[in-house]
Amino acid sequence: GKCFHPRSVAFVGASGTMGKWGHMLPTLTMSRAFKGDIYFVNPKGGEIAGHKVYPSVEAVPGPVDLGVVTIPAAGVPQLVPQFQKKGIPGMLLISSGFSEIGPKGKEIEEKLIDEARRAGIIILGPNTMGIANPHIKFYCTGTHVWPRPGLTSIVAQSGNMGTQLLAFAEKQNIGVRGFSGSGNEAMVCIEDYMEAFEFDEKTRIILLYLESVKNGRRFFESAKRISARKPIILLKGGQTKAGNTAAKSHTGAMALDADVFNAVCRQAGIIKVEHPMDMLDLSAAFSAVPPPEGNRAAIMTLGGGWGVLAADMCESGGLMVPPLPPDLVQTINELLPDYWSRSNPVDLVGEFDNELTMKTTEALLRWEGCDALINLGIHGRNIMLHRLVTSIKKSDPSYAHDFLDAVEKNGAAFERRYIEFAVELMEKYEKPIFGVSIFTNRDKTVFSVKGKRYKGLFYPTPERAVRAFSKMYNYRRFVNTQTR
Amino acid sequence: GKCFHPRSVAFVGASGTMGKWGHMLPTLTMSRAFKGDIYFVNPKGGEIAGHKVYPSVEAVPGPVDLGVVTIPAAGVPQLVPQFQKKGIPGMLLISSGFSEIGPKGKEIEEKLIDEARRAGIIILGPNTMGIANPHIKFYCTGTHVWPRPGLTSIVAQSGNMGTQLLAFAEKQNIGVRGFSGSGNEAMVCIEDYMEAFEFDEKTRIILLYLESVKNGRRFFESAKRISARKPIILLKGGQTKAGNTAAKSHTGAMALDADVFNAVCRQAGIIKVEHPMDMLDLSAAFSAVPPPEGNRAAIMTLGGGWGVLAADMCESGGLMVPPLPPDLVQTINELLPDYWSRSNPVDLVGEFDNELTMKTTEALLRWEGCDALINLGIHGRNIMLHRLVTSIKKSDPSYAHDFLDAVEKNGAAFERRYIEFAVELMEKYEKPIFGVSIFTNRDKTVFSVKGKRYKGLFYPTPERAVRAFSKMYNYRRFVNTQTR
Repeated sequence: GKCFHPRSVAFVGASGTMGKWGHMLPTLTMSRAFKGDIYFVNPKGGEIAGHKVYPSVEAVPGPVDLGVVTIPAAGVPQLVPQFQKKGIPGMLLISSGFSEIGPKGKEIEEKLIDEARRAGIIILGPNTMGIANPHIKFYCTGTHVWPRPGLTSIVAQSGNMGTQLLAFAEKQNIGVRGFSGSGNEAMVCIEDYMEAFEFDEKTRIILLYLESVKNGRRFFESAKRISARKPIILLKGGQTKAGNTAAKSHTGAMALDADVFNAVCRQAGIIKVEHPMDMLDLSAAFSAVPPPEGNRAAIMTLGGGWGVLAADMCESGGLMVPPLPPDLVQTINELLPDYWSRSNPVDLVGEFDNELTMKTTEALLRWEGCDALINLGIHGRNIMLHRLVTSIKKSDPSYAHDFLDAVEKNGAAFERRYIEFAVELMEKYEKPIFGVSIFTNRDKTVFSVKGKRYKGLFYPTPERAVRAFSKMYNYRRFVNTQTR
Repeated sequence: GKCFHPRSVAFVGASGTMGKWGHMLPTLTMSRAFKGDIYFVNPKGGEIAGHKVYPSVEAVPGPVDLGVVTIPAAGVPQLVPQFQKKGIPGMLLISSGFSEIGPKGKEIEEKLIDEARRAGIIILGPNTMGIANPHIKFYCTGTHVWPRPGLTSIVAQSGNMGTQLLAFAEKQNIGVRGFSGSGNEAMVCIEDYMEAFEFDEKTRIILLYLESVKNGRRFFESAKRISARKPIILLKGGQTKAGNTAAKSHTGAMALDADVFNAVCRQAGIIKVEHPMDMLDLSAAFSAVPPPEGNRAAIMTLGGGWGVLAADMCESGGLMVPPLPPDLVQTINELLPDYWSRSNPVDLVGEFDNELTMKTTEALLRWEGCDALINLGIHGRNIMLHRLVTSIKKSDPSYAHDFLDAVEKNGAAFERRYIEFAVELMEKYEKPIFGVSIFTNRDKTVFSVKGKRYKGLFYPTPERAVRAFSKMYNYRRFVNTQTR
């Protein structure tokens, strides 16, 4: 609890030397506008970053909720009585040199945990890259990545996977509720995190990178219970012989039979993915759009090839692309040029009229024969427009730059309007729109609209949109079996 | 020939109105420093972009190699005798309204092609989004994307797939030899393009997006012959029932049985991929690194989780992750802290020493037990460093900004040096290094080094690196069966 919501943090092993963990963590925390108190602790005393350094946690003037420890492993057990005296409830133990280095380290670790338990101190780690709670601007990780606050909680049994997941979240504009690199999980393990997320109102989506599970039965039962209310998106490292060997040397993970584990995940409603990026793509979908009630896709595309590929991907992913009923064909006849395809996918055949694009979008989403709309290539046109305008400025002096700038502004305004419109439609029909951008400058996938429950969702490729729809639909089926 | 290397281009149907194809194509061509002559043709006369407009191609003063036609379909047949009189050998027929709209359009198209054949005029299209030859800065496409010149030739039977492939190429920094949106393929079809690429010295890699093939036997025989010398990377739209229905309405493609087509591809050595991005990822690999002679991967990682996942992905992709031999363990013992894993993947355990990183890289690539090195997380650290420096500037006044800027510069210099070093090693050992960036700002994957045959190759995710290795290895096996 207090570990992730500290009002005050003491950095034990604080250092003035750039590059050391004892410098990196407090400077990162301070640079992100964290509102709590920050104290530096090091027996050497002196000043760091213009702040007084206290010789021990007991010397710190105010109360301390969390001690962030970066001193060598051998000195850590001595901290327990000091933390106890000072009344510090939590220790984030960054230091390595514990069970991950072999039997000697394991002995120190076990003794440390015993003593901490007796002293009532919670230890996160050891050998972790840190934790974050963007809601209070508390970023305390070995990597300088700062996703915005949001609904997704992430636990990673690996530091560089944590880094990658946070970096993807930041780029995609996915909000993070909390992050923990769980390290050696000497005291607090993945099962504990899951159960904490169950009761945390702010957590709506759970992302787990796992290499091992300490208590299989507890994991399964918690996961099944939680999955019915909050999606758990899981990536498992060590699913092959080669991966397992690597995992053993990384976290000392016991081999879990991949088939058994996969069966357990299926029964528990866990959304299992193959690649780190899939985790964030699904997190984006769950945080942005209503769940699809069925597997029928309407596809709207700004060109034929993408429509063909999206239809292929739908069928491969267990989704359907039903034919259009006559009345819907009639409706669209009044919108599109008369050589339009009259079939699903609906090709806008290069039609750029904004009103028409919006009307076709609504006609498709309203259609009772579909559960979701896959929308290819409306979003991102303003990047193309910017390039068009740049070319014209260079080559055609008969167009005034003012005029061209206004054209570009109008394009950007329509793009914003289209995102709002998509969100309004999702509220009206309670069906998701999975969008794909025709051009992207960055990897942003989630576009917030002020005052709205849903968000614009636009992936950079059709395969990512279809995969999100497919996995989200499978999860929805699980939830329905649990609640009916 | 001349279509892709025109010294002079006439835009027939040129327009002064922004947004029309007759304005977009010439302004794009002019804005990219194309050295050839450009003429505007429109019976209305007047001026466009400050240039004289000629009433017909015959009125153009100089010779014309290529006519780019954007007038309505009905008027196109009349152009044939005009092109013939003027001696214009090629027509890029952008206009739609031909076979793709039904029997009426098909009739006009067939008649047009007959007449053009008799007149000795080559027609590309109709219904195409254009062509490009970056080597002569000739960009004439409906989309404003400008990949740099290089070794990869691309043909797409779909305009928006062409757009996406060119956009990926530009972002990833993959050089393009030539591009063609093949449109309806009324005269020049995919088989013709392939055979042209066979004899084009500058084409080293071939990318095809297909929905249909006119002459299956010819396609298969050409592909098999060409594959032995140049990799053909192919994405097929319409491989499922839903996709096929969509393809029929898009290009009028005949159904090809997916299993039969896949078997044909395997026998012909075609590298078949599932997603557009895979095409460019493979193009990046073939253009940047030597081919792997076997399937044994050495993995070097800056953290455990990525190593585990990469090992999993290797095994799933038919690659091996062999154990390290004792002498190599001995060599690395002298480089890494003594708690290093002593196994493959080799975890640098957060070690940031530059010399050591380079020495470990070489020790692994030199190892005769591996055919390629997968390198996770050295590249991209300078982005992390930039963020670290930014945090310190905000929070620790004891560090001078000059000093921090110098640190950042050194980091960037090492990153450049590391790319050079990787390229030097690839030349020395003739084995590929598949890199993965720990952080990326853009999607660049190919990093050129002046005067070197090979290039730095760094993907944004482990799965993309492993997939490239696996597909490249399968292709190599095919080539070896063909040449032994």
